[in-house]
Amino acid sequence: MPSSTPSPTPSEFSADLSARFAALVGERYAIADAGGQGPYLREWRDRYHGKTPLVLLPGSVEEVAAILRLADETRTPIVPQGGNTGLVGGQIPHATGHEIVVSLKRLDKVRAVDPEGNTLDVEAGVTLQRAQEAAEAAGRFFPLTLPSEGSCTVGGNIATNAGGTGVIAYGNTRDLVLGLEVVLPGGRIWHGMRHLRKDNTGYDLRNLFIGSEGTLGIVTAAVLKLFPKPRSVGTAFIGVDSPAAALSLLQVARENGGGTVTAFELLPRRGVDFVLAHGADARDPLAEKYPWYILLEVSSSAELGVGEALEAMLMQAYEKGYARDAVIAASLDQAADFWRLRELLSESQRFEGGSIKHDVSVPVRLVPAFLDKAIAAVEAFIPGSRPLPFGHLGDGNIHFNVSQPVGGDKKAFLDQWEQTNALVHGIVAEFHGSISAEHGIGQAKRALLPGVKDPVELAMMRSIKATLDPNGIMNPGKVL
Amino acid sequence: MPSSTPSPTPSEFSADLSARFAALVGERYAIADAGGQGPYLREWRDRYHGKTPLVLLPGSVEEVAAILRLADETRTPIVPQGGNTGLVGGQIPHATGHEIVVSLKRLDKVRAVDPEGNTLDVEAGVTLQRAQEAAEAAGRFFPLTLPSEGSCTVGGNIATNAGGTGVIAYGNTRDLVLGLEVVLPGGRIWHGMRHLRKDNTGYDLRNLFIGSEGTLGIVTAAVLKLFPKPRSVGTAFIGVDSPAAALSLLQVARENGGGTVTAFELLPRRGVDFVLAHGADARDPLAEKYPWYILLEVSSSAELGVGEALEAMLMQAYEKGYARDAVIAASLDQAADFWRLRELLSESQRFEGGSIKHDVSVPVRLVPAFLDKAIAAVEAFIPGSRPLPFGHLGDGNIHFNVSQPVGGDKKAFLDQWEQTNALVHGIVAEFHGSISAEHGIGQAKRALLPGVKDPVELAMMRSIKATLDPNGIMNPGKVL
Repeated sequence: MPSSTPSPTPSEFSADLSARFAALVGERYAIADAGGQGPYLREWRDRYHGKTPLVLLPGSVEEVAAILRLADETRTPIVPQGGNTGLVGGQIPHATGHEIVVSLKRLDKVRAVDPEGNTLDVEAGVTLQRAQEAAEAAGRFFPLTLPSEGSCTVGGNIATNAGGTGVIAYGNTRDLVLGLEVVLPGGRIWHGMRHLRKDNTGYDLRNLFIGSEGTLGIVTAAVLKLFPKPRSVGTAFIGVDSPAAALSLLQVARENGGGTVTAFELLPRRGVDFVLAHGADARDPLAEKYPWYILLEVSSSAELGVGEALEAMLMQAYEKGYARDAVIAASLDQAADFWRLRELLSESQRFEGGSIKHDVSVPVRLVPAFLDKAIAAVEAFIPGSRPLPFGHLGDGNIHFNVSQPVGGDKKAFLDQWEQTNALVHGIVAEFHGSISAEHGIGQAKRALLPGVKDPVELAMMRSIKATLDPNGIMNPGKVL
Repeated sequence: MPSSTPSPTPSEFSADLSARFAALVGERYAIADAGGQGPYLREWRDRYHGKTPLVLLPGSVEEVAAILRLADETRTPIVPQGGNTGLVGGQIPHATGHEIVVSLKRLDKVRAVDPEGNTLDVEAGVTLQRAQEAAEAAGRFFPLTLPSEGSCTVGGNIATNAGGTGVIAYGNTRDLVLGLEVVLPGGRIWHGMRHLRKDNTGYDLRNLFIGSEGTLGIVTAAVLKLFPKPRSVGTAFIGVDSPAAALSLLQVARENGGGTVTAFELLPRRGVDFVLAHGADARDPLAEKYPWYILLEVSSSAELGVGEALEAMLMQAYEKGYARDAVIAASLDQAADFWRLRELLSESQRFEGGSIKHDVSVPVRLVPAFLDKAIAAVEAFIPGSRPLPFGHLGDGNIHFNVSQPVGGDKKAFLDQWEQTNALVHGIVAEFHGSISAEHGIGQAKRALLPGVKDPVELAMMRSIKATLDPNGIMNPGKVL
């Protein structure tokens, strides 16, 4: 088992071993000084900090293979890293100081794009935004969308099975990958860059690596699925009475929205208030206030007609009482304004003091009941606390954030992080949900996993880890 | 490794052991007589025949677990079976006579349907048609469609990652499953019946079992994804000059077809001739003959407008030279007539003598070049042979069937099956394709796998098999 594998202690991490690793990539790309290492050892929210003898920046798949060969021989733990935007500390080494960080940044080639076959071959270090742009330049669309897309990498998206707002129509990262190239512990390379829509020749190893958070090997490249560009997009901001009304609205939107529902985001009034109070140039889109809002996006392959269909659908939803009021974006700018309300929501919480966060999912149908119960429980547990649940209602994925009581003590509030997590996760379990819908396990939720996972499933995960990484060098102490 | 695990020889298969297995399900559901066993030991094309001491028909998940517990203890090989419609012999025991067949037929409950959450919980023995009907009754759509849907089971569909004609829009079975319940070797039950659209809490074990052809465990139930029913469907039968022209047509259809392309099937003129010659009431839909045809289906959530959009799109394709002529079905009956041409194609070959078959895929863009090369190679190898490639062009999946020369000797032709396979599969490899796009490996292609699979991938498959099924009791000698 990885946890029982002996690893060198910091003192054992000899100058000789360092030199051997550095020689594999060249001195220039082996960072040993604290200043140079800084950006690789803490993440943007400054929540996880690590130590490492070396940050390695390999420039080719063969160099990655050489690193994992030497690491396996010398039992040196490896922490793979993409754009360092992960939220659960999966990409940050522990403080023990004997884990080598391998950044995939220099593997940044767009290898091929095939608009006819709708595929895009990219290396792990290509940022999500560059992948989107490469698709766009070929007249196609790559639908994965994340706030961090300018810096997160495709390799990191794959390692964490990234989600985002487009999941409702296009699925998670797992649904967007046709093939992978992976370096395994020991340095063997799996050449799995397939471009096939159908292939039933054995076990699905691709999906085993997607979402494994660097604990089974290092993804060095991938074949991504492309899609036709939507010809027209309609965006509406809709006031609703409750999450239950919003789910009824979703049914109507799916049936009569004039295209595919490509976003269905829930916002609480409290969140809109926060953004309006602290956002630079945010405006309230509707004249009256409603307890909840839906940001709806409908995409169509037709050039015309989305606007009319969306309008007729909203009229129908209004008549049935599912929608209280709504505005359809008249321009791309106005659509961007709606989206800004959604995107600034999490950030605006910073100005309201401490915030305890959860990234959970339940079956879509159960979201309203889950919200009722979780909001009441949290408000009872910390009187005056301000629950701010928002997110991907159409996928059952709620970012159940809680802001501290007005004027309360931030530290005292944040000291209740784990108890609040336990409370909310307990309710998630009652609703057969997930305690990590899209962010992964990493360091943050590793200790929670045995409490929420079927022991049979956990045992299978452990045995697969032990089989594919027998010396436990791949990102130890993450996930399992 | 499974292949080196000692299993009881037929003589060792004692009456005592038989009685212990029979006691687990009750005598009535333990079939030991040759007459009763017949339907479980040969498949419908009569190509694979097996022997077994017992066919067991467990009536509950717990009985399946008890069977796998005893099997693991006694090292008794188990062959799981669904509707016995598989095409590669995965569900048929070997002739050695010491493998027990476990039919999932009696696990046939529809456990739950949730139209709001778009999920359907079914047991493994539910036929695909019953699953479709359960979705339909709830106002939803389950898109998996196969010629054998009246008898094949959801468990078998999952074990083989079944494909079919809807893959272009909805994906393979792997894309249609949210959760699984699986009995593992040793009898532990993995309770993985999740209803979540997003869940990033560990490795993707679900997709590991999907497509593993009963070699890792027995799937006893699944949570299936449902979809909105299309409001309108347009079906066209289109004459084209070449597969390359057909691919251009596909682009136009995707962009301007008025909805989602839900089928894009290629038929060669020779295939249409075969059906017209031997089909009961088949009619040629177009006045003139063309070398190739496309059966196009477009589905929309809009009630009106598909017909007009389809017509305009076809006019555009005609003007660009992608389509030579086309007819749009004016009624459901006429659409069914088009589909019958496609569906009878394989069957009609029986009347034209022997047929050598391949189920291959290549990247979509490369299908025309692949067909050119493979047709020429086969015609050169067996002069007078009649290649009849057809199938799911939009997914790059071609059923590359070859009928024997007119008036030639059937046996002499079929004796060249393996050499012809080797020839075609060699060309598939040049085009980075798959030798089993949708039927799986089973017995039929097991010997071919080491020749076409990345050795690193094959080694990973073997180590996962050894880890999850250490005593090698699950469907030994299949896939690996």
